[in-house]
Amino acid sequence: MNGAEKLLETLINNGVEICFANPGTSEMQLVSAIGDSDGMRPVLCLFEGVVSGAADGYARMKDKPAATLLHVGSGFSNSMANQHNAKRAHVPLVNIVGDHATYHLQYDSPLTADVPAHAAICSDWVKVSASADDLGDAGAEAIQAAMTGAGKIATLIAPANHAWEETTEAAISLPLPTAEIVSSDTITEVSKALSNGKASALFLGSRALREDSLNSAGRIAEKTGVRIICETFPTRLQRGAGRVAVERLPYFAEQAEEFLKGFEQLIFVGAKPPVAFFAYPGKKSWLIDESCKLITLATVDQDQKSALEAVADQLSTTAIPTTTPPLPEEVRVAATQGPVATGDLTPLAMSQSISTLMPANAIISDEAATCGMTLFPATMNAPAHDWLTLTGGAIGQGLPLSLGASLACPDRKVIALQADGSAMYTVQALWSMARENVDVTVVILNNRSYAILNIELARVGAGKPTAKTLSMLDLSRPDMNWVEISTGMGVPASRATSAEEFHQQFAQAMATKGPHLIEAMVVQQMP
Amino acid sequence: MNGAEKLLETLINNGVEICFANPGTSEMQLVSAIGDSDGMRPVLCLFEGVVSGAADGYARMKDKPAATLLHVGSGFSNSMANQHNAKRAHVPLVNIVGDHATYHLQYDSPLTADVPAHAAICSDWVKVSASADDLGDAGAEAIQAAMTGAGKIATLIAPANHAWEETTEAAISLPLPTAEIVSSDTITEVSKALSNGKASALFLGSRALREDSLNSAGRIAEKTGVRIICETFPTRLQRGAGRVAVERLPYFAEQAEEFLKGFEQLIFVGAKPPVAFFAYPGKKSWLIDESCKLITLATVDQDQKSALEAVADQLSTTAIPTTTPPLPEEVRVAATQGPVATGDLTPLAMSQSISTLMPANAIISDEAATCGMTLFPATMNAPAHDWLTLTGGAIGQGLPLSLGASLACPDRKVIALQADGSAMYTVQALWSMARENVDVTVVILNNRSYAILNIELARVGAGKPTAKTLSMLDLSRPDMNWVEISTGMGVPASRATSAEEFHQQFAQAMATKGPHLIEAMVVQQMP
Repeated sequence: MNGAEKLLETLINNGVEICFANPGTSEMQLVSAIGDSDGMRPVLCLFEGVVSGAADGYARMKDKPAATLLHVGSGFSNSMANQHNAKRAHVPLVNIVGDHATYHLQYDSPLTADVPAHAAICSDWVKVSASADDLGDAGAEAIQAAMTGAGKIATLIAPANHAWEETTEAAISLPLPTAEIVSSDTITEVSKALSNGKASALFLGSRALREDSLNSAGRIAEKTGVRIICETFPTRLQRGAGRVAVERLPYFAEQAEEFLKGFEQLIFVGAKPPVAFFAYPGKKSWLIDESCKLITLATVDQDQKSALEAVADQLSTTAIPTTTPPLPEEVRVAATQGPVATGDLTPLAMSQSISTLMPANAIISDEAATCGMTLFPATMNAPAHDWLTLTGGAIGQGLPLSLGASLACPDRKVIALQADGSAMYTVQALWSMARENVDVTVVILNNRSYAILNIELARVGAGKPTAKTLSMLDLSRPDMNWVEISTGMGVPASRATSAEEFHQQFAQAMATKGPHLIEAMVVQQMP
Repeated sequence: MNGAEKLLETLINNGVEICFANPGTSEMQLVSAIGDSDGMRPVLCLFEGVVSGAADGYARMKDKPAATLLHVGSGFSNSMANQHNAKRAHVPLVNIVGDHATYHLQYDSPLTADVPAHAAICSDWVKVSASADDLGDAGAEAIQAAMTGAGKIATLIAPANHAWEETTEAAISLPLPTAEIVSSDTITEVSKALSNGKASALFLGSRALREDSLNSAGRIAEKTGVRIICETFPTRLQRGAGRVAVERLPYFAEQAEEFLKGFEQLIFVGAKPPVAFFAYPGKKSWLIDESCKLITLATVDQDQKSALEAVADQLSTTAIPTTTPPLPEEVRVAATQGPVATGDLTPLAMSQSISTLMPANAIISDEAATCGMTLFPATMNAPAHDWLTLTGGAIGQGLPLSLGASLACPDRKVIALQADGSAMYTVQALWSMARENVDVTVVILNNRSYAILNIELARVGAGKPTAKTLSMLDLSRPDMNWVEISTGMGVPASRATSAEEFHQQFAQAMATKGPHLIEAMVVQQMP
């Protein structure tokens, strides 16, 4: 058994089932080992940003790591933007990065780069194997590291000779860590604070946004009157009909600051105090009132579910919180007859079709950028679903994320709401969607613009834009044709130029399994 | 004048004319400054790997830097693979990377990353500006750094507040460094060595592969009988009819080792001793005979042209070297009537069409991978042209490179020979080609495979591949349709399924200005 085979056996023994891969020469033994195995599903991606984004999507839905297989420094660097997003999402992820043979590095051949320096930038844990046997064992260490807290990015660098050299010891298993339980003192302190009558909110992120935790938050809110707020960009928010409703912090700093005004206490669960996404001339980065008391119930690496439940129990709340009502049955039925809206395809018209037509238990990947600001509130009463967002702000995540989420949950419909500009970054995801025949409906929100940057241009006080300035934010000239791009990569596609067409095409996509892309020619009112 | 405006003025004053850009919020003042300027041409690219690859292509043809405009850590990381290639090409490049305002970094907002750590990995020079005035001045320092030796990667990190704060001092200019002249002792030593009758070769890279340097090398070869060899992956090789012929070191290590056998002396000019691209079990990384004497005439950062000329003069060689003969006139004329080859579209048939139909002074971007192994030798007698290759092995360079080369040389036809697998990495380049209406003919060599990896799989001794193994190297299921992908991004395209169709379509593309893509359905014999 060579090092690659031992590593693969270790990964499988320790629960890793899928590997998103874009291999090169240095990873051929690992490719071969996967090819010979029964327990590992390889998913070929034609760009490394797809690899890391898909692994993130998988982890968000499974709460366990996928493996990635990446080729030396340049392959890793191509994956880094979505590694950054995954790190900000606090998901578990195990990167396997091939490197030159240890004795070959000194020759500085053309592809040679400092792989550990790459890995250090966006990983929580990095190791270069010391031998073939160590490479195998390090697979278990990487999984252990990845499963720490809510999830960590673990990167194992595999020199090619460790992959092809023989091992002498059997593959190992290591126990998985469990999240730290919040102390009873903290539970009591927070319970008291929540009962002191001050203007308060629970500020939730990470696992605190799952249905069970939200039920506890809902019970607390019912008893104490506190509000329930979530991060602007949650990893995975369970929402819709039958779920406890959460208010989402607005994106724009001035709106967020306004939103947070007047709170005397904020209780953080799986989240940090929010700050402005960017700095702007003359505006504050810190959004919360100086007088507001900040209390942490559970960090992102602590057990958020048990902490919220313990507080709810200590407050002797009712067992059943208030939840979001569903859309009236007649609205759902009417939608089967045709669209509510007609004419221009506005984000609101789209939301109405999506809300009424999407099946229960759908997964939504939201990289809709400016359009998403309408889509999110307008789908509040849709059937229960999971809402995944761009956690780290590095655009080009949505398509890979939906690929990975669908492979994690093949029985659930995935809907990728995707802005045109960011879709281009990792457009190669479409090909893997076709190859894996995933049940993903991609909605490209084609406004032919980096619309958000047109807004930001004004917000940073950069003066009156010239035509030349605006050309740098404009995605027309040439207009992209997403139907052609999509079918060229194997995903059937259609274009919707009106609310009626969108409704009909979306209904069709919901009724059909397999990948489909709708190019939605959005008519957008700027927020 | 704010810091962004001062920086822009400095860049323009110091000779930078073009900026490949994918900006975000942190770069809005720079976008605005460019939009207000006359002296800087912005080229919007829809992915940062296109930005850096295009800047490389521009620099290879102009011997001066383009600027890039990139957004924080994730934008830079997306550009890194082609930064790596540019660094290995030894070209000048000035990266401008926006970052959060200095006072905002402490808040660790979602996009926050260690930008200097990113930059350090693939830059020769990195600076974070200290103030608005310093940002302006640093533009000149960056250009100075970039123009050192053959060329360096200079990365200037611009905190957003330095871009929007006011400056107090005028923009500066700094003198450009000149390449170090090789000492007369070295010239004499090398001249003597070349005359000692030992089996010798000039081993050339970098600027030594330009026509003037090659003429000197040709004169030396004529006098002494030494061979002229170039790196496997040259930055820019001037070749074809009327040029001094150069033997190219083979890619595969065992072939390269065989090729280098028997040499008693190798004289390096703008190149380092070659080594195996990858390590393989039981094979050597170092390719040159242990007994071979290695002599450096000029490093990549020294003046290679004057060094070769001085040696040629010292050897009292003839003034005119032997050069490559052109294709016979009747072959060129016959090609206007139709293809030489018929039937299957083999790389050889393609080469015949390309050699006979391409105009004089064309620029070829070669990321043809396995197909390129045939195309290169078979175009030896084509009209004089520049051959650009993948210097750093990080695939996904060819399309951006040809975009940048064409913008540098708008009056020359650019031909991008591009493998399908690597084309996907930076496919977004097609959109910028359409927008800028560059005169680039893209030939996608569609063999529906990472063909090189099928070869490497056998070479690394990874055992007999299963169907599952091969699926990880296979680009069919689904087949990509490059005509649709290309037209979807605005570049007119056609598919050639036979030698005749390719000949006709390539002839048409050569006769027409503007971007065009030919999807060549290659039938390939594996080397």
